[in-house]
Amino acid sequence: MKFVYDFTEGNKDLKDLLGGKGANLAEMTRLGLPVPPGFTITTDACRAFLLTGDEPDTLHDEVSAHLDALERRMGRRLGQGDDPLLVSVRSGAKFSMPGMMDTVLNIGLTDESVGALAAQAGDERFAWDSYRRLIQMFGRTVLGIDGGLFEDRIDEARRTAGVATDVELTADRLRALVAEFKEIVVAATGRGFPQDPREQMDLAVRAVFASWNGERARLYRRQERIPNDLGTAVSVCAMVFGNLGPDSGTGVAFTRDPASGHQGVYGDYLANAQGEDVVAGIRNTVPLAELERLDAASYAELLRIMEVLENHYLDLCDIEFTIERGKLWMLQTRVGKRTAAAAFRIAVQLLDQGLIDEREALRRVTGGQLAQLMFPRFSTESEHTPIGTGIAASPGAASGAAVFDSATAVARAAAGERVILVRRETNPDDLDGMIAAQGILTSRGGKTSHAAVVARGMGKTCVCGAEELQVDVAARRLTTADGTVIGEGDVLSIDGASGRVYAGEVPVVPSSVVEYFEGTAAPDADDLVAAVHRLMTLADRERHLGVRANADTAEDAARARRFGGEGVGLCRTEHMFLGDRRELVERLILADGEAEREAALDALLPLQRGDFTELFEAMDGLPVTVRLLDPPLHEFLPDLTDLSVRVALEHDERDTRLLTAVRRLHEQNPMLGLRGVRLGLVVPGLFTMQVRAIAEAAAARRAAGGNPRPEIMIPLVGTVQELEIVRDEAEAVIADVERVTGAALSIPLGTMIELPRAALTAGQIAGSADFFSFGTNDLTQTVWGFSRDDVEASFFTAYLEKGIFGVSPFETIDADGVGSLVRAAVTAGRAARPDLKLGVCGEHGGDPESVHFFHEVGLDYVSCSPFRIPVARLEAGRAATAGATTTP
Amino acid sequence: MKFVYDFTEGNKDLKDLLGGKGANLAEMTRLGLPVPPGFTITTDACRAFLLTGDEPDTLHDEVSAHLDALERRMGRRLGQGDDPLLVSVRSGAKFSMPGMMDTVLNIGLTDESVGALAAQAGDERFAWDSYRRLIQMFGRTVLGIDGGLFEDRIDEARRTAGVATDVELTADRLRALVAEFKEIVVAATGRGFPQDPREQMDLAVRAVFASWNGERARLYRRQERIPNDLGTAVSVCAMVFGNLGPDSGTGVAFTRDPASGHQGVYGDYLANAQGEDVVAGIRNTVPLAELERLDAASYAELLRIMEVLENHYLDLCDIEFTIERGKLWMLQTRVGKRTAAAAFRIAVQLLDQGLIDEREALRRVTGGQLAQLMFPRFSTESEHTPIGTGIAASPGAASGAAVFDSATAVARAAAGERVILVRRETNPDDLDGMIAAQGILTSRGGKTSHAAVVARGMGKTCVCGAEELQVDVAARRLTTADGTVIGEGDVLSIDGASGRVYAGEVPVVPSSVVEYFEGTAAPDADDLVAAVHRLMTLADRERHLGVRANADTAEDAARARRFGGEGVGLCRTEHMFLGDRRELVERLILADGEAEREAALDALLPLQRGDFTELFEAMDGLPVTVRLLDPPLHEFLPDLTDLSVRVALEHDERDTRLLTAVRRLHEQNPMLGLRGVRLGLVVPGLFTMQVRAIAEAAAARRAAGGNPRPEIMIPLVGTVQELEIVRDEAEAVIADVERVTGAALSIPLGTMIELPRAALTAGQIAGSADFFSFGTNDLTQTVWGFSRDDVEASFFTAYLEKGIFGVSPFETIDADGVGSLVRAAVTAGRAARPDLKLGVCGEHGGDPESVHFFHEVGLDYVSCSPFRIPVARLEAGRAATAGATTTP
Repeated sequence: MKFVYDFTEGNKDLKDLLGGKGANLAEMTRLGLPVPPGFTITTDACRAFLLTGDEPDTLHDEVSAHLDALERRMGRRLGQGDDPLLVSVRSGAKFSMPGMMDTVLNIGLTDESVGALAAQAGDERFAWDSYRRLIQMFGRTVLGIDGGLFEDRIDEARRTAGVATDVELTADRLRALVAEFKEIVVAATGRGFPQDPREQMDLAVRAVFASWNGERARLYRRQERIPNDLGTAVSVCAMVFGNLGPDSGTGVAFTRDPASGHQGVYGDYLANAQGEDVVAGIRNTVPLAELERLDAASYAELLRIMEVLENHYLDLCDIEFTIERGKLWMLQTRVGKRTAAAAFRIAVQLLDQGLIDEREALRRVTGGQLAQLMFPRFSTESEHTPIGTGIAASPGAASGAAVFDSATAVARAAAGERVILVRRETNPDDLDGMIAAQGILTSRGGKTSHAAVVARGMGKTCVCGAEELQVDVAARRLTTADGTVIGEGDVLSIDGASGRVYAGEVPVVPSSVVEYFEGTAAPDADDLVAAVHRLMTLADRERHLGVRANADTAEDAARARRFGGEGVGLCRTEHMFLGDRRELVERLILADGEAEREAALDALLPLQRGDFTELFEAMDGLPVTVRLLDPPLHEFLPDLTDLSVRVALEHDERDTRLLTAVRRLHEQNPMLGLRGVRLGLVVPGLFTMQVRAIAEAAAARRAAGGNPRPEIMIPLVGTVQELEIVRDEAEAVIADVERVTGAALSIPLGTMIELPRAALTAGQIAGSADFFSFGTNDLTQTVWGFSRDDVEASFFTAYLEKGIFGVSPFETIDADGVGSLVRAAVTAGRAARPDLKLGVCGEHGGDPESVHFFHEVGLDYVSCSPFRIPVARLEAGRAATAGATTTP
Repeated sequence: MKFVYDFTEGNKDLKDLLGGKGANLAEMTRLGLPVPPGFTITTDACRAFLLTGDEPDTLHDEVSAHLDALERRMGRRLGQGDDPLLVSVRSGAKFSMPGMMDTVLNIGLTDESVGALAAQAGDERFAWDSYRRLIQMFGRTVLGIDGGLFEDRIDEARRTAGVATDVELTADRLRALVAEFKEIVVAATGRGFPQDPREQMDLAVRAVFASWNGERARLYRRQERIPNDLGTAVSVCAMVFGNLGPDSGTGVAFTRDPASGHQGVYGDYLANAQGEDVVAGIRNTVPLAELERLDAASYAELLRIMEVLENHYLDLCDIEFTIERGKLWMLQTRVGKRTAAAAFRIAVQLLDQGLIDEREALRRVTGGQLAQLMFPRFSTESEHTPIGTGIAASPGAASGAAVFDSATAVARAAAGERVILVRRETNPDDLDGMIAAQGILTSRGGKTSHAAVVARGMGKTCVCGAEELQVDVAARRLTTADGTVIGEGDVLSIDGASGRVYAGEVPVVPSSVVEYFEGTAAPDADDLVAAVHRLMTLADRERHLGVRANADTAEDAARARRFGGEGVGLCRTEHMFLGDRRELVERLILADGEAEREAALDALLPLQRGDFTELFEAMDGLPVTVRLLDPPLHEFLPDLTDLSVRVALEHDERDTRLLTAVRRLHEQNPMLGLRGVRLGLVVPGLFTMQVRAIAEAAAARRAAGGNPRPEIMIPLVGTVQELEIVRDEAEAVIADVERVTGAALSIPLGTMIELPRAALTAGQIAGSADFFSFGTNDLTQTVWGFSRDDVEASFFTAYLEKGIFGVSPFETIDADGVGSLVRAAVTAGRAARPDLKLGVCGEHGGDPESVHFFHEVGLDYVSCSPFRIPVARLEAGRAATAGATTTP
């Protein structure tokens, strides 16, 4: 087996073997671009090392052969002679992965070669600084020494020298530091810093291999579901130096603006510096265009290379380069990250340029990006200066009065005020406050913190982990890095897309993309809208999946239609039992005997009929799937504990009577209780009242010249017998309405598949169902055995942090568990009934990755909230375009 | 296709085609026994009729041919001539089925043939009574006329004649009744009673076919899971008459005593009567032995036939026969029902006689019968006279003071009194009272009524539907048929095995079978115990499944061992957190910071260690599977509502603090919340404390010379990552204990499979598990999406009544749903890890039908409550004996 590839041997399609970095270095070499020579040790070698704890037998010789070749080509020897060759050792897995060892520069420097480097570079300080950096970086990452030990000595050296920055330390100071660093190495490892250049290199390679199984890397892989057995490659590359004087420098460049997508020259340049310095931000970079003035030849060469790369990769590339004494070297390239708006613009530009075809254009944008473009944003954000920046945890833009505890949030919100809940971190006790607030800001915690997870679940704007902001809950104030104090009631604005936090109110404007979907902006309103319009049109043409809306009212249905919804996939009738009608529902529940119960149902009938008539009118000509009442009855009554306390204190007679009913209906686990079809089978007349309302509404619409297309859906079916009984009753009612009105109503009757048992016996159930709609919310709850309400706040945070979940299974369908049931039910259902219509109406219907799953298992449609319809349309189109993934 | 079989053509193995009745009539004919000639129309004909609504084309001619043959053999014509042939038409499906039309006798009688019959029999009254019976029976069952219309006329005739019974009605009165009956037929159907004998027969056959889809028959099939497409056969048989004088008669006989199983002559005889009269109970039967005196020849012939039948069927047979003027005719035989004790005795007797082999003997008894033998019974029942009899709904024997409402039951039980809850019927509001009572008695409802279902779920004695008892809840009294009044506080005794109800206390004695299992009675204590011992020994030799116990204490473990348990399959540690230790648990839950939490855990550690040490001692040498803490923490705290009310009224400071914790831990659906492995991952130190206690207890036992074999089981795992983390922690703790104590502990670590997701991803989970134990209680809850506590009381009754369930899925495993997941998990788990140990510890582990299922899917063991161990052993042995079913 071949374990080492010269840069001249590989290419960009060998990412599995050479990692992303190595494959792209090889590709650039192959294109004849100026890449410093080097070679890549393959992931095969890493896997062999991880398995056995040792490098493969042949690796050492193979590396020697490649190193020899490199030395011959460069005319220099690694760490030896008058002009010693130095190399960098860089990790590079197939997927970029935080937590793995990254890079060791300057390998080859020793007590001996440091002098040669100084002489060769004509710069004593540069050579000792390079050696200091090597020992520090090698000590920390290869030898595992606490980095703070080195930092402390540098601090001390600066103090002693009376200077502010490392750059001001003299060569002598640096030489002394090297001596101290070497003592640290001896103290920590029991032996001296390796003086054999080849040993330095071998140890660094081995450390990269071992870092694959570092704790953070493993956690990251668990979260991102990256297989554990890929391993990482290691690239060994001849060093070039951007810090050899004013004719040297280093920079990053993009072939297009990654923020807007517009074409042009974008990037930053720092003269007389190494890449490390750019990252450290000690000196300010200049815009890349400045390079033209500093070094016109290198600039022209860079522009030429950027064009070569973009035409070769057919996409925005980002590039790292170094100029060593007037000679341009390419250190890295990859397809560059970009903002959502840029992604849409670039895809359409490349399509217009004829560089990519339409399906490829669809692959270049994601539903996640489209969703970002649909959030409102701050209109004048550029005019404001953020007081801090945190993690963009849940998108949107929100302004409101700062409050520092849940109770205050609830109280002020109840008084009509818009509030932002500010906490160091949140916990389950903050839930009420989070619900009441416009947005949530925390100073601690990452993307998987409680605040972030819960806010995303609620669709609420959240910035978390804004560590430069000091939150003092007791004193009810927030202090910024520059000492500005925001007290309770002061207005804050937070941007959930960028993570920025502003003092005062920043006006919010709606998204132009939403205005386009709403029909209030033309498809060519601006170039972003035009790009979105173009790609949505392509997606609609490609997709096999229909897209319907979860909509309970005529207003929602009308919006869904504007957003491209092709019907209602889920109308939840329970919402029609709330508000003014609560009293009727209470009468139904408290009914003493059949007559009272029927009177309550009779009173509800015309109200329900009215609801459905409006809904069918809004969706005229398109299917409307109405789910019969799902939740348990006690949801329509007061809370048991609250009412018990009230009765104990006030002894009100009506309350006491109510309490008896609440107690009777009380369930330990209402999610697993008397609800859905069970309720329909136990409460006589309830479902038939609803069926009658639907049928009469359809007949009324028909009489008015409309084209109503209702479909009736039975919730929570576990066994076909339940469905058979309800179906018989419903058919009798529909036949009765047809007889009375003379209308020929053809109303399909189907069922939710939202219990494991329904999925497991789908073949039987299909015998009595015209359609299935997968209720993946409930299915996720029962397959995992946890209720969303109870657990998102309690242990999901810990689970995400421990990497047990990569993403909440309520956000993206759990393909291994829940998904396998869906797949089996689709197969069994279609086998039993080839014309069975299949859809999904859980919230997963609007989630990009889940949409791909539903496409793949062959559903007919997804149904989601009206606002998610464009995302679902786009992803459904992308799913039909082979090779599109949901991550950019 | 052949649709009609002469009795001479069929045999007992053709039950699918000829039904049970037809097949056995053919078998007796084949054996040369005196069966009246006849033929059977097949289930194929019935299925064709049900499918098309018409008899198959060829059926009429085929019936004609067989009828001709019958007439030729008898030398008589159906309903014609001087000596008209009469026939009976009887339904007979593969399984006996209430709700189907049963029998029409005397077909062939018309206005004309009634006279010939009178002349031939020499008995005018007999002829007119037979005709009256035909019109009445035919009118009701074939023509669907309300039977009350006929009864009313008979009542009136009796009144007019001034007689008490039908038998006293004269021939003239009966002739007049026939005229009136014929008028009823005309009024109800618009045409006269058919005078064509063949038409009578054809209509009766068609009515039998149609009765297959009668409402009650369909309900019964749904409940008993009998396929809907079997259809019924119809037997047409020449009539013989037992009511032609003192030398005629009718009777039933058993080849052994169905009550005790003892050999001898058992049965009843009624001279000068038809079968109908025996059922109606108008005259008292005499013991069968009396027949010897009345008709020695027939008696001898009957004994000979009984011996033939028993030697042929190799089992207890029950027989219906008629003697017509000194000639014995066999009308029916089948393998007879018997009591549990009889089943055991008979199986061993037949085995001893060499009639059946050992595996067949095992097939002849069931775990359900064994369970009946293990309930305590009334010692002197025979000395008491029941005041009423109801349905034996839930076995056992109970005595106590009669109470008529739940609150009184709770109050009296709390005061230490034993009570029997008496209600017309129960509903969910009676739950507390049912829990408090020794037994439940209702006057309404059947085996699927609320009282029956809930009592069986609780394992509580219950007699329901004792309709002769009048329950007046308002007046707090029960009135028997003879007017005896039982008031509140008066002692009642109920026998859940027989359904009998007694006034006063009947002493209860333990079962001798239980004494045998306990070791306090010798294996030959009595002939029943000897039979049980013999068959248990056979079962243990045959079975592949191991049988363990669900036992939480050393006492339970010791009993389990006596009952034949081969280890503990489930030790629930939550019980160890109750009682005196509640306070420590409260400290753990209310802990403010790590130190307090650790202090609470440290205090619990030695207590847990002590528990385990005792348990391992009791099960020395056998495996003990300990499940780490499963329930949510709030189960160890007071109820939220109760505490809220108390705090609102009393403002106690400690309570207020407690309320905060209860609120924090409160979950809407605790079953779907923070429990099991989730709790272990979120509460630091909890699981490791338990693991340490187990390991230290094992080390202590090892040091004391014992052989502890603990296994640690992680509850509620949904994904392998959870298991991996807990496993890593547990292994570290065990290694630490090994290091400290020097004991080499080899403790397998496994998981419950009790969530659908665990079953669906069993292949992954097996990678980190040494064993699986299927938790089929929770699996049933999540697969069906209902919680046992909530739904058994609310909708299970309705579901059983509507036939949605045949049996509660918590009693017998739902093979189609839950079972399919178990099967898939077994396959995937073993594929991933061939040495994976597989067991089940849900309550299904002791249910006969479920044990067969677990045997069939290939588990290694079942675990059940100690008391169910003998049942599981027996059924495991029977399951290994091909062809054994769980119903007798």
